[in-house]
Amino acid sequence: MLNDAQDTVRALMHASRLGVDSHGIRLTRYYCDMLTKGGVNKSPSRLFEQTAPSTGRLNADFGLAHSSSYQAMREAINLARVTGIGAVTVHHSTHFGAAGAYALEAAELGFVGLVFSNSDPAVALSGGSQPFHGTNPLAMAAPVQNAKPWLLDMSTSSIPFNRVKLNRSLDLPLPAEVALDSEGQPTQNALAARFLQPLGGLNYGYKGAALAGMVTILAGILAGADPDPLMASTDQAQKGEKRQNVGHMMIALNPAHFVGQKNFESGLAVYLELLRASPTTSADKTLLAPGDKEWAEYEHRKKFGIPVDRDTELFLEIKY
Amino acid sequence: MLNDAQDTVRALMHASRLGVDSHGIRLTRYYCDMLTKGGVNKSPSRLFEQTAPSTGRLNADFGLAHSSSYQAMREAINLARVTGIGAVTVHHSTHFGAAGAYALEAAELGFVGLVFSNSDPAVALSGGSQPFHGTNPLAMAAPVQNAKPWLLDMSTSSIPFNRVKLNRSLDLPLPAEVALDSEGQPTQNALAARFLQPLGGLNYGYKGAALAGMVTILAGILAGADPDPLMASTDQAQKGEKRQNVGHMMIALNPAHFVGQKNFESGLAVYLELLRASPTTSADKTLLAPGDKEWAEYEHRKKFGIPVDRDTELFLEIKY
Repeated sequence: MLNDAQDTVRALMHASRLGVDSHGIRLTRYYCDMLTKGGVNKSPSRLFEQTAPSTGRLNADFGLAHSSSYQAMREAINLARVTGIGAVTVHHSTHFGAAGAYALEAAELGFVGLVFSNSDPAVALSGGSQPFHGTNPLAMAAPVQNAKPWLLDMSTSSIPFNRVKLNRSLDLPLPAEVALDSEGQPTQNALAARFLQPLGGLNYGYKGAALAGMVTILAGILAGADPDPLMASTDQAQKGEKRQNVGHMMIALNPAHFVGQKNFESGLAVYLELLRASPTTSADKTLLAPGDKEWAEYEHRKKFGIPVDRDTELFLEIKY
Repeated sequence: MLNDAQDTVRALMHASRLGVDSHGIRLTRYYCDMLTKGGVNKSPSRLFEQTAPSTGRLNADFGLAHSSSYQAMREAINLARVTGIGAVTVHHSTHFGAAGAYALEAAELGFVGLVFSNSDPAVALSGGSQPFHGTNPLAMAAPVQNAKPWLLDMSTSSIPFNRVKLNRSLDLPLPAEVALDSEGQPTQNALAARFLQPLGGLNYGYKGAALAGMVTILAGILAGADPDPLMASTDQAQKGEKRQNVGHMMIALNPAHFVGQKNFESGLAVYLELLRASPTTSADKTLLAPGDKEWAEYEHRKKFGIPVDRDTELFLEIKY
C-alpha cells in the first residue's frame, strides 16, 4: 500500500506540475472514494508474467492503476533494453490518470514510450446516438538532446467531459462539433450536453472514432480487459457499486537499436528547431510542439506553486 | 526487379480492390515516371540488418517502397513469432502507397500490424502558415474471428490533397477547416487551396498535428530518414530532380503472447458486434468499423470489376 500511495501521488503530481489540472490532485477525492467504497482494491495481489522475450502481462487485481502502470512501463523498458522493444499489457486495472506520466517514465530513461488505455463509454461513434468508446487516451514521449522530452498526451475526443462541466459552471456555450445531447444530436448547450463527439467533428469524426477503436484493441482487447461499451462507469466505480476492468498497453522502444541513441535525440532536436522556427499566421505567436506548453507551465509552477481549486482544497483540509 | 514489380502491383491492387482509388492503379504513372526519371532506384541493393532480438532496420536504397515495406513487415512478423513483438524501420525509402497494405499482411497471418510513414510537407501545423508535416498515414490491422480483418488506414490530415484536385476539376467548394491558401488562411475555394489543415480543424488541429509528429518521430527520425520539412517533394521525385529519403515503421504484435490468439480474435468479434448493433441518429444507417466499407467494396469489385479513370486507362493503353 505504501508503493500505491507513492505512485498515485507521483502520477497526480506529474499532471499538476505540468498544468494538466483535470488529471492532477483534483482527482484525490475520486481515488479516495474508490478506495473507501471498494471501486478499487486496497490490497491488490498484482501479478506480472513475462510471456515472451519482449512481452508481458500484468494482472492489476483492481488495485490503484498508477502503481500498475508505472510497473508495466518499467517492465517494458527492461525488455526493450535487451530486445529493442518491449510491450506489456495491464488488465483488471482501474483509472490511471494522465497517460503521459508513464510515457514520460520511458523518455526520461532514454526510451520512446507509448501508452494507450481504454475507458468507459463517453464518446459517440461517428453517426452514433449513444456513447460507445471511452475518451481513450494515447500518449507518447521521446528524449530530446539537451531538452525536456517531446510529450504528447491526448484523448481521442476533441474535448474531455470535464470541459463540459466547466462550461456549465461558467454558463458558457461549448465549441461546435464537440458534444451531443441525450438524443445524440449536436449541441453547444453545456447543460444539454450528455456525451462527446470523437476528434474530427461531424465530417471527420470517423477518424477520431477509428483512433479510439485502435486504443480499445491495443489496450483493451489485446490485454483481456473489458471492451469500452461493456465497462462499468467511473461513477459506478466511485460509488463502489461496480469495478471496472480497464486495460492499458505500455510500449518502450530503444533508440539504440534503431538509428542510435545520439542520432535519435539530436535528430529530434533538429526537427523541433525547424518546427519552432516555422512561419505562423500571426506574428506574435510561435509554434509549439506537444509538451512545450506543459514544460513552460512546469517551470512557472516550480516558482509560483500549483493552484488548487476550492473543492479539492476543502477536501484535503477536512481529510488531512 | 521482378519482385519489385510484383510487390508494387500487389500494393496498388490492394488499394484498388478495396476502393481506395487515390492509392490504387491510378498511381502506376507516378511510379513509372519515378523509375524512368530516376526518382527511385531501379536496381536497389536493399540491406536488412537485425539489430536486437525484436528489432531491425532496412536500408531501402531508394528502391520502389512497396517491396521494402512488405519485406520490413515480414521481418517484423518473424521477430514477433519468437519474441511477441517485432519492430522494423525502413530508411532511404520512397512513397509506399497505401499504408494499410502492409498492416493487412500482418493481420492475415494472425498478428496485429501497425504501420507509420512520414512524407513530404503538405500539412500546416496548427497556427502555421506553411506546410510542415506530410499527410503522414498511420495504419493498423487486426485479425477477427470468422471475418475479414479490422483495418484502419488514415492520414493525419482531414482530407488528402487529391480531394482538393478532385473538387477543382468538379468546380466544387471544399468542406470548412480542411485546407489553407498560399498565405496560410483557411479557404473553401479549391482553386485557392495550396495545402492542408491537420485533422481537428481550426480548434483541435493541434491534435492532428501532434499525431503527424508522432508518425514523423516513429517512422522518420527513429529510422534515420529525412524529417518531413526537409524532405524533397513528390513532384521533385516524379520529375527525377531529387530523391526523397522517406521513413517507415512496421510493428507486429503476436496476440498469442498477450490474451491468446483465440481470445483476441473472438474478443475483437464481440466488440465489432457491439459496434454494429449500436444505436444511430438515423434509422436507415448502420454504424461501420474501420475497414467495413472497404471490405464491402472489395466484394462488390470482385463481381463487377475495378473502375479505372480515363487518364490511367489512356496511360496503360499507350504504354502496354
